[in-house]
Amino acid sequence: MGPPPAVADVRRAVRHALDDLEPGDLVLVACSGGADSLALAAGLGFVAPRAGLSAGLLTVDHGLQEGSPDRAAGVVRLAPAFGLDPAEALSVSVGTSGGPEAAAREARYAALSEAAVRLGAAAVLLGHTRDDQAETVLLRLARGSGTRSLAGMPARAGLYRRPLLELGRRTTVAACAALGLSPWDDPHNLDPRYTRVRVRERLLPAFEDELGPGVAEALARTADLCRDDADALDGWADAVYARAVVSDSALSDIGAVTVAVPEVEDVPAAVRRRVLRRAAIEAGAPPGTLAAFHILQVDRLVTDWRGQRRVEVPGGVGAVRRYGTLIFARQPASPVS
Amino acid sequence: MGPPPAVADVRRAVRHALDDLEPGDLVLVACSGGADSLALAAGLGFVAPRAGLSAGLLTVDHGLQEGSPDRAAGVVRLAPAFGLDPAEALSVSVGTSGGPEAAAREARYAALSEAAVRLGAAAVLLGHTRDDQAETVLLRLARGSGTRSLAGMPARAGLYRRPLLELGRRTTVAACAALGLSPWDDPHNLDPRYTRVRVRERLLPAFEDELGPGVAEALARTADLCRDDADALDGWADAVYARAVVSDSALSDIGAVTVAVPEVEDVPAAVRRRVLRRAAIEAGAPPGTLAAFHILQVDRLVTDWRGQRRVEVPGGVGAVRRYGTLIFARQPASPVS
Repeated sequence: MGPPPAVADVRRAVRHALDDLEPGDLVLVACSGGADSLALAAGLGFVAPRAGLSAGLLTVDHGLQEGSPDRAAGVVRLAPAFGLDPAEALSVSVGTSGGPEAAAREARYAALSEAAVRLGAAAVLLGHTRDDQAETVLLRLARGSGTRSLAGMPARAGLYRRPLLELGRRTTVAACAALGLSPWDDPHNLDPRYTRVRVRERLLPAFEDELGPGVAEALARTADLCRDDADALDGWADAVYARAVVSDSALSDIGAVTVAVPEVEDVPAAVRRRVLRRAAIEAGAPPGTLAAFHILQVDRLVTDWRGQRRVEVPGGVGAVRRYGTLIFARQPASPVS
Repeated sequence: MGPPPAVADVRRAVRHALDDLEPGDLVLVACSGGADSLALAAGLGFVAPRAGLSAGLLTVDHGLQEGSPDRAAGVVRLAPAFGLDPAEALSVSVGTSGGPEAAAREARYAALSEAAVRLGAAAVLLGHTRDDQAETVLLRLARGSGTRSLAGMPARAGLYRRPLLELGRRTTVAACAALGLSPWDDPHNLDPRYTRVRVRERLLPAFEDELGPGVAEALARTADLCRDDADALDGWADAVYARAVVSDSALSDIGAVTVAVPEVEDVPAAVRRRVLRRAAIEAGAPPGTLAAFHILQVDRLVTDWRGQRRVEVPGGVGAVRRYGTLIFARQPASPVS
């Protein structure tokens, strides 16, 4: 008799996510104690020794809730039963920049990355499921996002891997139950002050009520298709960027980026705008505040040139057109004489 | 004193949508009598003579509601006041294929296209607004759609143009009120048996409640970005398709399409799958039922070749790999000897 189906699903997903690692590599799981990451930790504990891998556990104490150090210590105490060693609680202090969710996320990833490097880990596993992916896509959609953003969370990014991205939360809950594990229910997961909680508790159920079941799967499928599209277009834009950026030592010394208009004017708009966006970022525009409408304005310097003046984008960066080039720079570029 | 702002917005949108037409060209507006297409008809009646264009009106009687012939006749009677001539009511009979909404849409467009060709029109204007676009994107999203599908309705496609796609429904309602027009409220627009009605009346409001205002604008922005991306990728796939399809008279005589594997194996997945999708369609697979998972299976014949047998896709079409080519054909392809 094999393991219960949910347990087998989690193990299979973990095995698949680790199949390129070398014997002896260390894999860490980031575990909050919630159902998703608890099932993942148990899955890693089972799979790692059979794949010749070392495995350990990290848990982050955000210091935001009463008793959070005790909870973190409790998660660390579970590690030996899963065969996970080392096991560490990482205390972080959460700032306020970008709102409470973004600040907590930033502090969490910084601590996880630091620990992974210090321990020499080859991978850090995260417990995001298909339901988290669906929430992410809906949140981004409501902001008017492009293909890359709708692609949601990738299954792999740098050290991080998300083995459970094709499984539903139902599976992790069932796996915990089958293994006799008691997941921690984070009270923040029910607090409607968090946007993600409102998406999970109200918006996705409204979707299912009005359009029928399977919405989370459909949103995750959308994310996969968008990710492939975004990868292809980013690759195309990389190639155009490499051809289009003009080396001009006087300008690049002051951090300016010069783009040859003839190299970009005949490529499709989606590619050209990616190239212009990248040039703006290289010149110092912060990616987070650089919006589609800024790039549209810059694009008009290429496609609708009528002698416009400098187009301002965030970070004090501007773009001007001079003799068949676009110059992106922090200071108003002086006319080329 | 100029016209009220909503009236001016509609006129500006109509003027912009027609700015490439030649003097004397005939433009028709498809008008149901609802606020969107009524405001559009009034706008066309104002703009056309000033732009040297002829303008007429079409209205479709779907024959699905009590009194629909009278309503269609009522819309036709409005045309002279707008200066629209010719004005015709088109009676259609709606089938059942694909559900009531799809069947009505198909019958409507067939009648509009027929009339446009018969009358020699250069363009047919449709009254879809940004709110319709947002509904379309949400509906498609919930089906797990790719970039092209999330692109929603295009501003131009063949004879059809949608001048109001950047205006909200609020604007058309205000324009009708300012002009003293009484739009017809289609009872179907409130009938929750229609998926689109549930999206409009329940899901979009839930979005705004949970995530704040501006969701319709954000969804329309997403559609625009996705459309540019889809255009770029389709263009890339066209170029690869032209190189990859092998001319083999014996096979193409039986409607088979042969794709050279070396031409597609190194292009990004998003492009390769578009090429494979197009090959399957050329070989007879119906686009409407050809899903992403069919193409993923075919794709494995390229990227994960282990001697698999024929992959079946809809329409009785299958794909086999033979000596470095993929052959898409209705009948199982006989081995090349």
